Amino acid sequence: MHQFDLRVYYEDTDLAGIVYYANYLKFIERGRSEWVRALGVDQVALKSTQGLVFAVRRVEADYLRPAKFDDQLQVVTECLAVSGARIALSQAVLRGSNQDEGERLFVALVTLVCLTDAGQPARIPVDIRAKLLPARP
Amino acid sequence: MHQFDLRVYYEDTDLAGIVYYANYLKFIERGRSEWVRALGVDQVALKSTQGLVFAVRRVEADYLRPAKFDDQLQVVTECLAVSGARIALSQAVLRGSNQDEGERLFVALVTLVCLTDAGQPARIPVDIRAKLLPARP
Amino acid sequence: MHQFDLRVYYEDTDLAGIVYYANYLKFIERGRSEWVRALGVDQVALKSTQGLVFAVRRVEADYLRPAKFDDQLQVVTECLAVSGARIALSQAVLRGSNQDEGERLFVALVTLVCLTDAGQPARIPVDIRAKLLPARP
Amino acid sequence: MHQFDLRVYYEDTDLAGIVYYANYLKFIERGRSEWVRALGVDQVALKSTQGLVFAVRRVEADYLRPAKFDDQLQVVTECLAVSGARIALSQAVLRGSNQDEGERLFVALVTLVCLTDAGQPARIPVDIRAKLLPARP
Repeated sequence: MHQFDLRVYYEDTDLAGIVYYANYLKFIERGRSEWVRALGVDQVALKSTQGLVFAVRRVEADYLRPAKFDDQLQVVTECLAVSGARIALSQAVLRGSNQDEGERLFVALVTLVCLTDAGQPARIPVDIRAKLLPARP
Repeated sequence: MHQFDLRVYYEDTDLAGIVYYANYLKFIERGRSEWVRALGVDQVALKSTQGLVFAVRRVEADYLRPAKFDDQLQVVTECLAVSGARIALSQAVLRGSNQDEGERLFVALVTLVCLTDAGQPARIPVDIRAKLLPARP
Repeated sequence: MHQFDLRVYYEDTDLAGIVYYANYLKFIERGRSEWVRALGVDQVALKSTQGLVFAVRRVEADYLRPAKFDDQLQVVTECLAVSGARIALSQAVLRGSNQDEGERLFVALVTLVCLTDAGQPARIPVDIRAKLLPARP
Repeated sequence: MHQFDLRVYYEDTDLAGIVYYANYLKFIERGRSEWVRALGVDQVALKSTQGLVFAVRRVEADYLRPAKFDDQLQVVTECLAVSGARIALSQAVLRGSNQDEGERLFVALVTLVCLTDAGQPARIPVDIRAKLLPARP
């Protein structure tokens, strides 16, 4: 389970005084970028050397409570499954920087698909797969 | 069924050369704003006179094909149901400005909830409800 | 002088209830895209066939009055000069869709530079130059 | 001189593969928010207790070199002057997290104005002024 902290700035809010709903997708994308970086997956190299990118195929998102300006948030990312060209993730945005104490504001099930430069689905390389979903006891 | 045309600009794209995934939520929000405007619902007045706003509670989104810079897109919005404090919408982003011919790029089921200024769910006013979901034969 | 209309949506506002300051740069970029399109300059073709892009080199921006949610705005773009690799533009964002009556909210002097794919300044092609700045009597 | 680190994510880039030009204004706004926080100025409290906000009045921005996906950037903020209702700042975005070694990508002179809730200029409170621009030897 990967954790990533972020702060809410003016740019994230809307006139309702809360975080604009599309921006949670930005937050969880930052979380995914930091998650794969922490696993040692280099997205830039993956694209330039193997011509592979990960694209979002589906998002099921629930907005539970609003985040506000200046809030300290935490993105929690958990890999649920890796199969063929697809990755299933559970992601959440919590208020506070301690996941156990945090208040859940936003939760999402995200399906990623591995694509070639030409936009065709591609099998996820074995070494990437092993990093994303380590064997469990 | 409401239709709203828009153009893809630089701001909407990312380094993959396609529309960034969070921006489809901006596009369908523009579509919703124009849809309620077309129905004669004034969001600003609704907030100032009755203290009511509509907030997104849930989004189920499928990314089918990527939109590109300079594409002419169409947002199609259809109201599926209105019940108590909730509105269920089907929204789609098509390429092209003719819905029948358009290529579906993005589809979403969106649940809105009517909230008071204090963030509590509120029954949708009868006159608004009548505008959102006209009686069908 | 090119005119382009746009509407302010939720995505454009911040918690102060007005358009977030960075978003005026999005608005004037939309204006520039529609301006060159109207002149018959195809940015996509220019890049793919000649390897040329226009990048912003400098912006001097004054924020005069705030735009609000639901405002109907107009972007006015005027080409001041074209010289070598550079284009100097005057751009403004007005409230209202009639330029003569509009209230000026934002004005900017924008310097664009023509770049090769490698990021080196490049002389603006003669045919483009002629379109951008027609001979004046 | 205040320093603030940030990372470039997908959301920040455009189809040119570099950071979209409006997003540098987001970056320096984050820098300003962290700068005033570090000085002990609470923007939320300033608004709720004294009805005062800081708004951007003018930006002179030079785009020197492009930032790219995954770059580690640093925002450097320096207060040049505080006078009446205005604050003059010099802000820069550097590549790298060590200011002395960093490559300057973007520099801006930013003028802020202190406003009342009604949007009228207001004298900056003495205690805020003292925090923003400490006496120099």
